[in-house]
Amino acid sequence: MAFVSFRRLLIGDPLATQNLENERLNKRRGLAVLSSDALSSTAYATEEMLKVLVLVGAAGFSLTLPITFAIGTLLAIVGFSYHKIIHAYPQGGGAYLVGRENLGTMAGLIAAAALLVDYTLTVAVSACAAVAQLRSAFPSLIGHEVDIALIMVAIVTILNLRGVKESGTTFAIPTYAFIIIYGSMILYGLVKIGLGDIPRQPLPPIEPPPGGYWTLGAFIIFKAFSSGAAALTGIEAVSNGVSAFRPPQAKNASKVLFLMLGLLLLFFIGTSFLASWLGIAPHEHETVVSQVGRYLFGTSFLYYAVQISTILILFLAANTAYTGFPRLACLLAQDRFLPRQLANLGDRLVFSNGILILGLIVGMLVILFQADEHRLIPLYMVGVFITFTIAQTGMIRYWLREGSKHRYFGMSLNGVGAICTTVVGTVVLAVKFTDGAWITFIAIPCLVVLMYSINRHYEEFKVQISLDYAKAPKPFSSHKVVMPVSDIHRGVLEAVRYARTLSDDVSALYVDLGNHERMEGLKREWEKWVPDVPMVILPSPYRSVIKPIVHHLDHLRDSTSTDTAITVVIPEFVPVKWWHHLLHNQTAFFLKFALLFRRRQNRRYKVLADVPYYLRR
Amino acid sequence: MAFVSFRRLLIGDPLATQNLENERLNKRRGLAVLSSDALSSTAYATEEMLKVLVLVGAAGFSLTLPITFAIGTLLAIVGFSYHKIIHAYPQGGGAYLVGRENLGTMAGLIAAAALLVDYTLTVAVSACAAVAQLRSAFPSLIGHEVDIALIMVAIVTILNLRGVKESGTTFAIPTYAFIIIYGSMILYGLVKIGLGDIPRQPLPPIEPPPGGYWTLGAFIIFKAFSSGAAALTGIEAVSNGVSAFRPPQAKNASKVLFLMLGLLLLFFIGTSFLASWLGIAPHEHETVVSQVGRYLFGTSFLYYAVQISTILILFLAANTAYTGFPRLACLLAQDRFLPRQLANLGDRLVFSNGILILGLIVGMLVILFQADEHRLIPLYMVGVFITFTIAQTGMIRYWLREGSKHRYFGMSLNGVGAICTTVVGTVVLAVKFTDGAWITFIAIPCLVVLMYSINRHYEEFKVQISLDYAKAPKPFSSHKVVMPVSDIHRGVLEAVRYARTLSDDVSALYVDLGNHERMEGLKREWEKWVPDVPMVILPSPYRSVIKPIVHHLDHLRDSTSTDTAITVVIPEFVPVKWWHHLLHNQTAFFLKFALLFRRRQNRRYKVLADVPYYLRR
Repeated sequence: MAFVSFRRLLIGDPLATQNLENERLNKRRGLAVLSSDALSSTAYATEEMLKVLVLVGAAGFSLTLPITFAIGTLLAIVGFSYHKIIHAYPQGGGAYLVGRENLGTMAGLIAAAALLVDYTLTVAVSACAAVAQLRSAFPSLIGHEVDIALIMVAIVTILNLRGVKESGTTFAIPTYAFIIIYGSMILYGLVKIGLGDIPRQPLPPIEPPPGGYWTLGAFIIFKAFSSGAAALTGIEAVSNGVSAFRPPQAKNASKVLFLMLGLLLLFFIGTSFLASWLGIAPHEHETVVSQVGRYLFGTSFLYYAVQISTILILFLAANTAYTGFPRLACLLAQDRFLPRQLANLGDRLVFSNGILILGLIVGMLVILFQADEHRLIPLYMVGVFITFTIAQTGMIRYWLREGSKHRYFGMSLNGVGAICTTVVGTVVLAVKFTDGAWITFIAIPCLVVLMYSINRHYEEFKVQISLDYAKAPKPFSSHKVVMPVSDIHRGVLEAVRYARTLSDDVSALYVDLGNHERMEGLKREWEKWVPDVPMVILPSPYRSVIKPIVHHLDHLRDSTSTDTAITVVIPEFVPVKWWHHLLHNQTAFFLKFALLFRRRQNRRYKVLADVPYYLRR
Repeated sequence: MAFVSFRRLLIGDPLATQNLENERLNKRRGLAVLSSDALSSTAYATEEMLKVLVLVGAAGFSLTLPITFAIGTLLAIVGFSYHKIIHAYPQGGGAYLVGRENLGTMAGLIAAAALLVDYTLTVAVSACAAVAQLRSAFPSLIGHEVDIALIMVAIVTILNLRGVKESGTTFAIPTYAFIIIYGSMILYGLVKIGLGDIPRQPLPPIEPPPGGYWTLGAFIIFKAFSSGAAALTGIEAVSNGVSAFRPPQAKNASKVLFLMLGLLLLFFIGTSFLASWLGIAPHEHETVVSQVGRYLFGTSFLYYAVQISTILILFLAANTAYTGFPRLACLLAQDRFLPRQLANLGDRLVFSNGILILGLIVGMLVILFQADEHRLIPLYMVGVFITFTIAQTGMIRYWLREGSKHRYFGMSLNGVGAICTTVVGTVVLAVKFTDGAWITFIAIPCLVVLMYSINRHYEEFKVQISLDYAKAPKPFSSHKVVMPVSDIHRGVLEAVRYARTLSDDVSALYVDLGNHERMEGLKREWEKWVPDVPMVILPSPYRSVIKPIVHHLDHLRDSTSTDTAITVVIPEFVPVKWWHHLLHNQTAFFLKFALLFRRRQNRRYKVLADVPYYLRR
């Protein structure tokens, strides 16, 4: 009962099924819940890029802005492609649905696996990046990163177990706070630069990396681009979450998508420009965003506002995945590619099982990667681009089948998107392979194989339990009841009473462990109390109680027709205190276990019936 | 199956009950198995005494021999007292039986608790002392004491699970080897001294203890005496093990007792004399026995022979407790003071449960006390003297009731024993209290309370299940069968078939989770396949499957007479692979768990019957 109360406190009272429809997102809350993933990548995308460019020394930093604009262009192309997807698939499901319908089950499952990996890494990366921001503002937290990240994950998990509507309301304020505060910082910096108040700053002296500077070349450019492309993560969230919107879903979602894209471009390009102008290089213990804020505002109230709102948006980004992961898992479960428990609505009308699984996996990742988002991002990027590519490619097929006059426009838009994401995705995989991208590259096929095996089991199961060729059930023609006994007392008499109710063909089994005196005494008592139930004596020279009974039952099964039911009635004490169990031979328990364990060998009707006898003290 | 094979390899094949009588000890094997505990105390008794005397500096060592002779006298008195006990109680049981029969249950249980503690500490102290000897001979082992002690305990445990006769044969050679080798060392030293080959040696310079030397006074003398009284540990083993001897049991045991006493006196007094003559002081990393051996033989083959035979006798001492502890536990279990499982003979005709419990507790003690026998010995001594005192005092009462002409001699012998052990026991408790004796002093009453509680449960249990006022069982007048279903398929039809065999009054329960379409479909199919079984629809607005079923059953229970049996038939799939379980809602499992958990609230006949449906793939 303590557990139940604790659970109620954490998660809230159960909600009735009829409340389900109300739990939908309007535009305002939709932006709050679904845009945070994309916007929050501002917190680390510029930094990831700079971390590569620093390898070639000061010369590398001249490339910051060109690469930023290239990524911005890619972002716009992919964004427009997703706008098309939202209208084509207003029921949501994103890359999985688009891939499956247009390119076949295999493509759909690859997209689904990539998405599941993405959602997981969204939470892990966001939590770790939030910790990095926190540590930048409060350096005394250095060394406690893993603990703080785990606490954050636990909080998001619990909030989501409480339900999506509360999450939307709770989270609207911080999202808008981030948009206003972060946007103000960018605009303030740009205006000050425009007014000529801040001259271009030189880079601080940079420590050369161990082994000396690298040579600037195509590899470094590709690597910097791939790293900065982290800015694209999360823009698919809206298209995956369309079904969570209030009707008209496609229209609402589309508006949210464009608003989000505009903000993201402003924030990402603005951050890169400011970092470049202000001469900021990545630092081990302070993030680029923190350095920008500190430069513009000093260590003032405004600086802390930027840090805290960035932390909160990352927190919300993690929350996006908690909406997407269980929803996709439910879709996959309904299609019988994941365990059906993932399709159950929990007490609070959310998919609790999916939320819990996500929380557990993220917790493990945080511990394994020691809460370092830089080591997690390469794992993240591969999945993101696989998702993008399958979604865009699927849309090309979609337009080919579509009859509308807009199809050529849509097709070219998605075509360009598909080509871009394929190329970028291949580059990302190549340049990040040894940095951790290989993990995702292996995990996705494994997940696909798992989903196929699960599907095969469910298909086989359906055939095995189908009612085709089944006959209407007639009772068994005869029913044998056997009852193992080791003594005669009130509990046994109660069990005999029940057994006699089931059938007239009842027999008792007594295992003779060598104590003949005891056996003779029992026989006499038995004759006296239940003369109409015969007692079978099973010799057991090696003092096993279980084996002789199992052998007897096997023999019974082999010597009767398939139209005979066999029931084993097991008398059991129910003591008042749990520790009293330890004071009795647990023969009933071991017998049940042995029979359960051997069930497959038996493959014949052998029903176990427990007859409880309640002790009063 | 792998577990079973491993177990067979370790413990051997099961033995049939009829082999039981052969597993008895003759005199030769009796001395080997039962004397080792007493003889092995030679390895640490002298050292314990010297460890106290060193606290008062060189002056203290002049007391070694007087205290040794005082302890030797006590030893002889207690030994003779035990001779009387063996003859009075040839069925064995020692202090427990003697105390219980003569002084009442409470005294018996205190003795029993003290004995259980003693047996446990015999193993722990012997194992740790053996490690100390090993470390003296091979100093490279310093630092690995705990690991080596744990391995030793594991080996003794496994040997004992194999059975006592094999132990007797295996262990006879090392016992006699110890007697011959250690005896030779003592005699060799005495002869050399007698011939004047070894002059009396001065003590080596002794490091004063931190805080300076203590003052020689009554406290130190009592403390040294109490420590040296460790030589008495184990002499009760023969009287406890009388029943393990071949008939005539008392006569055989008595001869073994006297032989053992003689050897023990020789070894203990001899060791103390040699240590004193040779100027040996205790050393952190080398035992006194090792120092004596090294002085007489140098670091030669003979020195190693002494060390190894001492280690083996300590090993065997641990083994004594493995005979005594399970035997006493069985006796207590038969008297219903310990769980009855402790009275079960295992596969190999030994009390396996008792052996396993002993092994586990000792393992914990070794870890807790870091394999340091000096810290364990104070715990040990208290139990030993409580046992002695109760046994001797009980014998006084025994002689008072006895009519034989020898009773005055017996009574005076046991009377002197009782007075001596009471006085010494009180002194031991007082001077060793803060050294660890308090642990035993608390543990023994706790054990006694536990044994009383166990006994009370068994007594109450006996009354509750007794057949007094019971009536011969008549079948129930009616039988309601309910069957929760979530779907209709082959497994359900099989379950219906079984349910219809049990009774004509069968109803199906369907929990409506809000999917009305599904419910209507199921209703139609149900009507078609099993029109004669009504389906009850239970609404569940909060989507719990379990609660509505439990409430329905509660209602059923309250609305029927006590002469109606209620059976819940639960259809269950038995999949081919274990992980397939994860792919199905475990409703059957949770339902069974919920009903089991609520059994006490129900207190009415509600039998659970599992109907398995075997999947083929």
